[in-house]
Amino acid sequence: MNSMYYGSIEAGGTKFVCAVGNEKGEIKDSIQIKTETPEITMPQVIDFFKNYDLMAIGIGSFGPIDINVDSPTYGFITSTPKLPWRNYPFMKAIKDEFDIPVGFNTDVNAAALGEATLGAAKGLDSCLYITVGTGVGAGAVVQGQLLSGLSHPEMGHILIPRHPDDAYSGKCPYHQDCLEGLAAGPAIEARWGKKGIELADKKEVWELEAHYIAEALMQYMLILSPKRIVLGGGVMKQKQLFPLIHKKVQTLLNGYLNIPEVTENIEQYIVPPGLGDHAGITGGLILAKEAYETVRL
Amino acid sequence: MNSMYYGSIEAGGTKFVCAVGNEKGEIKDSIQIKTETPEITMPQVIDFFKNYDLMAIGIGSFGPIDINVDSPTYGFITSTPKLPWRNYPFMKAIKDEFDIPVGFNTDVNAAALGEATLGAAKGLDSCLYITVGTGVGAGAVVQGQLLSGLSHPEMGHILIPRHPDDAYSGKCPYHQDCLEGLAAGPAIEARWGKKGIELADKKEVWELEAHYIAEALMQYMLILSPKRIVLGGGVMKQKQLFPLIHKKVQTLLNGYLNIPEVTENIEQYIVPPGLGDHAGITGGLILAKEAYETVRL
Repeated sequence: MNSMYYGSIEAGGTKFVCAVGNEKGEIKDSIQIKTETPEITMPQVIDFFKNYDLMAIGIGSFGPIDINVDSPTYGFITSTPKLPWRNYPFMKAIKDEFDIPVGFNTDVNAAALGEATLGAAKGLDSCLYITVGTGVGAGAVVQGQLLSGLSHPEMGHILIPRHPDDAYSGKCPYHQDCLEGLAAGPAIEARWGKKGIELADKKEVWELEAHYIAEALMQYMLILSPKRIVLGGGVMKQKQLFPLIHKKVQTLLNGYLNIPEVTENIEQYIVPPGLGDHAGITGGLILAKEAYETVRL
Repeated sequence: MNSMYYGSIEAGGTKFVCAVGNEKGEIKDSIQIKTETPEITMPQVIDFFKNYDLMAIGIGSFGPIDINVDSPTYGFITSTPKLPWRNYPFMKAIKDEFDIPVGFNTDVNAAALGEATLGAAKGLDSCLYITVGTGVGAGAVVQGQLLSGLSHPEMGHILIPRHPDDAYSGKCPYHQDCLEGLAAGPAIEARWGKKGIELADKKEVWELEAHYIAEALMQYMLILSPKRIVLGGGVMKQKQLFPLIHKKVQTLLNGYLNIPEVTENIEQYIVPPGLGDHAGITGGLILAKEAYETVRL
């Protein structure tokens, strides 16, 4: 038993990653668990953490979730289409088993926190983290804090102008051709008839993908003015996207944001995750640390 | 002479409003000055304030401006198309005359601060203020602070999907058919051949205008999650826009933000300014107060 560790849960729609580690992001132990129902998945999560004497646990969860500390459903997963998890009291389920502080936020906010603390935006008080994969999501650190307001952001569903040559109708069940509906992995597969990974050498696929991602980044930049943008997720493994996105963002802005980070050094402004695939699980450790320190205040 | 007052400057592209008042937003004296060159306009600004013994002055300025306190051009108006004001050291010009703390931010951030402190979002730590007039601009209070990052937001120039029935090409010199290019006052006049105020009874004008504003609000809501949205500016004097916007925002979101403020009480969520046309000048007084208190810490 070692009491110097934090626990972290990255709760995704297909798998949970649970880890034990420290505030430097060093992982001592981790496990992957398939996302089934809470009755099947959660006991495995709890069994894993029972091997350790933890100081706190941080949860980065798929959403939508309730992060309003004054709400009676604070710590719940709320109106998710994954029915077994709808209205699930995630935070309470952990707190009932472990009498320690628990931090709770979205998976993408956790990833933004990880990148801002230990990753590609280390040392900055502002960072936008975007994942483009089976869906599109984003989290942000603004003026040193995870962005929240009425609720957490849902940036993957913003509207963007369609490319005039793109006849694909879009795949979002809510908004059809919002960003996620046009640019997430399933949209790529539906539009081109193959998975993105099988289309790596098709230039037109990535030109169009970069166009839509650049349109979204333009909105995020004009609205949030992040100090760095980190692009992760399965689709962004296609590294040829980065230079295309850099150029398209500059073309779309057309000199409007006359700031050196954008006009001269955009390669250092829009970057891959510094933590690779560990942004979310690392962010969970930082969420745990923040929960621990908040309780001690 | 009375030393219990703050000074406030709302620096717009056509006029400057200068006021002297207190932190409750009570105005003791004010003046309007035409925006010409700094050489003509600024001495009038300075003469006005010289009548008072002020604690601090707050400036809400047209932009773009430099609000990065670590920058050598902090307090400057930067790359504005209004050439006489380009690279103008606004904050220094005031500080050189008055040896008191000076707060400096954008006109729309000042208005957001005014509405969050004393207006329609009073008591909330989060507020988005949007002006739709000769241009479109927005400022935001997020987690109790004016939003900033790499720079201040430039939300008026986001991209939005075009309405399929709108053939107007757009009026923005940078982006053609961005939000400002499609929905600001000059775009209304260019599209319909008359000023908005002369088109008050034309239902199709306001249906289209509400459509574009609702598309923009959807982006702002998904990205920033503000606790209240305040819509001001000349175009928003057409009060028939509000119910149209409420309905269109709900239609566009299609149930995606399942939050009572959006699904049930949107009339109390998207609202006109509580301070009428005084949001900006009131926000300047609050900027002054914050500058005063920061220096005293």
